[in-house]
Amino acid sequence: MNERSGDTRPATAESIASLMRGLGSAARAAERVLAFAPATVKNQALLAAATALRESGESILAANRSDLADAERRALAPAMIDRLRLDERRLAAMAAGLEEIAALADPIGTVLAAWTRPNGLRIERRRVPLGVVGIIYESRPNVTADAGALCLKSGNPVILRGGSESARSSAAIHACLQAGLAAAGLPRSCIQLVPTTDRAAVGYLLADMAEFIDVIVPRGGKSLIARVQNEARVPVIGHLEGICHVYVDRGAELEMACRVVLNSKMRRTGICGAAETLLVDRAAAARLLPRLIATLIDAGCEVRGDQTVCATDPRVLAATEADWHAEYLDAIIAARVVDGVDAAIEHIARYGSQHTDCIVTEDAQTAERFLDRVDSAIVLHNASTQFADGGEFGMGAEIGISTDKFHARGPVGVEQLTSYKYLVHGAGQTRP
Amino acid sequence: MNERSGDTRPATAESIASLMRGLGSAARAAERVLAFAPATVKNQALLAAATALRESGESILAANRSDLADAERRALAPAMIDRLRLDERRLAAMAAGLEEIAALADPIGTVLAAWTRPNGLRIERRRVPLGVVGIIYESRPNVTADAGALCLKSGNPVILRGGSESARSSAAIHACLQAGLAAAGLPRSCIQLVPTTDRAAVGYLLADMAEFIDVIVPRGGKSLIARVQNEARVPVIGHLEGICHVYVDRGAELEMACRVVLNSKMRRTGICGAAETLLVDRAAAARLLPRLIATLIDAGCEVRGDQTVCATDPRVLAATEADWHAEYLDAIIAARVVDGVDAAIEHIARYGSQHTDCIVTEDAQTAERFLDRVDSAIVLHNASTQFADGGEFGMGAEIGISTDKFHARGPVGVEQLTSYKYLVHGAGQTRP
Repeated sequence: MNERSGDTRPATAESIASLMRGLGSAARAAERVLAFAPATVKNQALLAAATALRESGESILAANRSDLADAERRALAPAMIDRLRLDERRLAAMAAGLEEIAALADPIGTVLAAWTRPNGLRIERRRVPLGVVGIIYESRPNVTADAGALCLKSGNPVILRGGSESARSSAAIHACLQAGLAAAGLPRSCIQLVPTTDRAAVGYLLADMAEFIDVIVPRGGKSLIARVQNEARVPVIGHLEGICHVYVDRGAELEMACRVVLNSKMRRTGICGAAETLLVDRAAAARLLPRLIATLIDAGCEVRGDQTVCATDPRVLAATEADWHAEYLDAIIAARVVDGVDAAIEHIARYGSQHTDCIVTEDAQTAERFLDRVDSAIVLHNASTQFADGGEFGMGAEIGISTDKFHARGPVGVEQLTSYKYLVHGAGQTRP
Repeated sequence: MNERSGDTRPATAESIASLMRGLGSAARAAERVLAFAPATVKNQALLAAATALRESGESILAANRSDLADAERRALAPAMIDRLRLDERRLAAMAAGLEEIAALADPIGTVLAAWTRPNGLRIERRRVPLGVVGIIYESRPNVTADAGALCLKSGNPVILRGGSESARSSAAIHACLQAGLAAAGLPRSCIQLVPTTDRAAVGYLLADMAEFIDVIVPRGGKSLIARVQNEARVPVIGHLEGICHVYVDRGAELEMACRVVLNSKMRRTGICGAAETLLVDRAAAARLLPRLIATLIDAGCEVRGDQTVCATDPRVLAATEADWHAEYLDAIIAARVVDGVDAAIEHIARYGSQHTDCIVTEDAQTAERFLDRVDSAIVLHNASTQFADGGEFGMGAEIGISTDKFHARGPVGVEQLTSYKYLVHGAGQTRP
C-alpha cells in the first residue's frame, strides 16, 4: 500500500501495461455504445452526476483534506495547494458545471452541410465523436468533472489521468461520475480514471496506447505539455503558453485603455489569457503611458519597461530581452513603446505564443488591420484578454485553449471534441 | 553529378540541413505575404501556371521521357512506370486542374460563424490558412501541380518533395508553377520543390523542420505513409489504406447491386476507393450471389470466397483470413455471406480501414442503420465506392482522402487545408 497516494497497485512494467490495456479496451468497447447514446441519456448521466456531487460533498471534502495534508507535508508550492483545495463553493461550481454541460446542445448527429451533385448523389456531412480521449492533468481535481462531462457530452469515452497530489479528491469525484453513468444505464467505462499514481502509467498512455486512444489532451503547466508533445504517439490537442499582448494604439480612448489593460493583467494573473506584455504606440506615448503605468503599479503590478517606459515612472524596472518572452502568470508586466500598429504586429509575431492578443483603439481600420494580421487563436478589439475562455465565448465549458492550428484552435469545447463523416445517398449511381 | 536523378547537390548531412532550413525559412517568409494575397492574385498565378504548362508541353514531355528511360533501365514495376508516364492528355488534364482550382471559391477570410454575447462582445470565427505545408509524394508527377495549386489557393506556402523517379518531370512542372507565381507578383517561395533526391532530405523534412512546417501530407503507398507517421514530429494528414466494402442487403435490387459492385471493384482497381470485399446478406444469398459473382468473374475479376460463395460458382477460389484484411488494388475481390446488416457492420469494424463503405438496399431503415453505424470517412447508399473523391464530391481537386478523424476526414481539398481564428469586437468590456 502506497500510503501517500492511496495506491494499492503493484508497479511492475507488466502490471502497468496490463492495467492500461485493460482501460483501453474497455474504452473501445464503450465507444460504440456512447456514440449512439441519445442526448437525453447522456444528459441524464450528467444531471445524476451533479446530484451525486452535491450529495457526496462531505466525503469529497474529506478525501480532499487527506490530499491537502499530504501536499503540505510534502511542502508543495502554495499556488499548487490552492489549485488542489476544494471547498463548498468549488464543489457547487463543479456540480453547476455538469448541469451547464447537460444544457448544451448535443453536437453529435448535427448535419454540418448537405448538398446534391449533378448526378443526383445527395451528400451530407454529419458530426460524429472523435473516439477515445486521454486527458492528463495536474493538481486541479475539478478537471475530473469538467473533462469527464465534456467527453461524455461529445460521445467520447475518456481515460483520465489526474495528478498524484489530487488522487483521492479525483477518485471521490470520479465515483460521482460513475454514479451518473449507472443511473443513465451507460457503461461505467465511458469515464475511467487511471487507478494508479505511478508515473509509468503516463508514459504508457502517451506512447503505447495508439490502438486504444485517438487523441490526448494535456492540461497543466509547461513541463507537462512539453512531455506530452514529446512522447505522444497519438494526436495531441494542447496549448503551449499564453504570452498575451495588449497594444494601446494612438487612436485609443485613455479611460478604456486603462480599464482593459488593468483587467487583462490583474483580474487573475495565473490564467493563460492574462496579459503579459503591454505595447504602447510611440506616437501617443506622452498621452497614454503615464496613466497606464500608474494604474498598473497602483494596483500592485510590477512593470518592467523599455527606456521610454522607465522614464515615465521611477517605479518601473528595466526590462531585458527575456521579459518579452516571459509568461509571468504573476503580477508582473513587460511594457514598451512601438512605432504604431505594424510594429505591434511585428513584436507579437516575434515574441507571442499565438494565444490571445488585444488592440485598444477607436480607429476601426487600425483595429481591423491588427485583427487580420495578428496570427493568434483569439484577437480582440477593445476588450480584455481575460475573455479568452470557452464559457465567455458561449461555448459552455472548455477543456483548454488550443494554440494549435491543426484540428481545434482557441477554446476546446464539446464541438472541438468531434469529427465528421460523409453520408452519400444514391439511386444506383456508378462512376463513369 | 548524380546521373540517375539529375541531382547536382552534395549530400553531406550539413548540406542537407542547410538546404532544407533555407527552404523552411523562405516558406515562413512567404507565409505572411500569401496569407493576405487577394483571391484574384492567387487565381492569376494559377491561370498563368496553366498557360505555362500548356506552352511548355514539349519540354515537360522531354523531361518525362528521361525519367521514363531511367525507370525502365532500373526495371521499376509497370504500375509505377504507368503512374510516372505523362502524355498530351495528362498534361491537358493537369492544366485544366489548375483552372478548376482557380475557379473554386476562395476559402480564406470566410466567416464560419458569428454571434453576439449578452455583454455585447461580437465574436466571429474566420477561416485562415494552416501555415506551411510539406508534401511528400511518389511517382505521379502531376501531384506537383495539384498539390502546389491546392496549397496556393488555401494560402499555405508548400514544400514539395516528389519521388526521385519523377524528379525531372516534377522540376519541369514546378518551373511552370514558378512562372505563374512570377506573373502574379507572388514570392517564388510560395511553392518550393526540394531540389535534391537524397533520401536524407525526407528524414530532415519529417523530423527536423517543426519550426518551419505546420503539417505534412504524405501521398503514396503504405510504406511511405508508415514512414511518415513514424518519423514525423509535426501533424500529419494521411490516409492509411482503403479496404472498402460493398454490402448487398436482402433488400437490394439485383440489377443495381450488380452495377454498383462491378463499378466499385472494376472501374479502376488501383485507387483507394476501389472495393476490396463484397459482403452479401445470407438471407438473400440464393437470389443475389450467383449473378453478383458471375458478373465479377465475367469482367475479369478473381473472386476469393467463403464456403457459400465457393459453392456458388466453380471459378471462385477459397478465401483465407488474410483476404479480409487485403487491400488488393487489383482485379481481385474477397467475398462472403454475413447474417444481415449488423453482421456486415461488425465485419467492417473488424477488417475495414475507415475509408469508404457502401450498402446496396431498397430498405431505407436498413440503409440508415448502416450509414450511422459504419465508422468510416465516407458511407454510401446505393452508389459506387469509386465516388470517394474530392472532385466527385464537388470540392474541386483534392490532395487525398484522410482516414484520420483528427482535423480533416475524407477528401482533403482547399477547405481542409485551413484553420480559423476568433475575432472579438468589444466596446471596452472587462471580465468581472
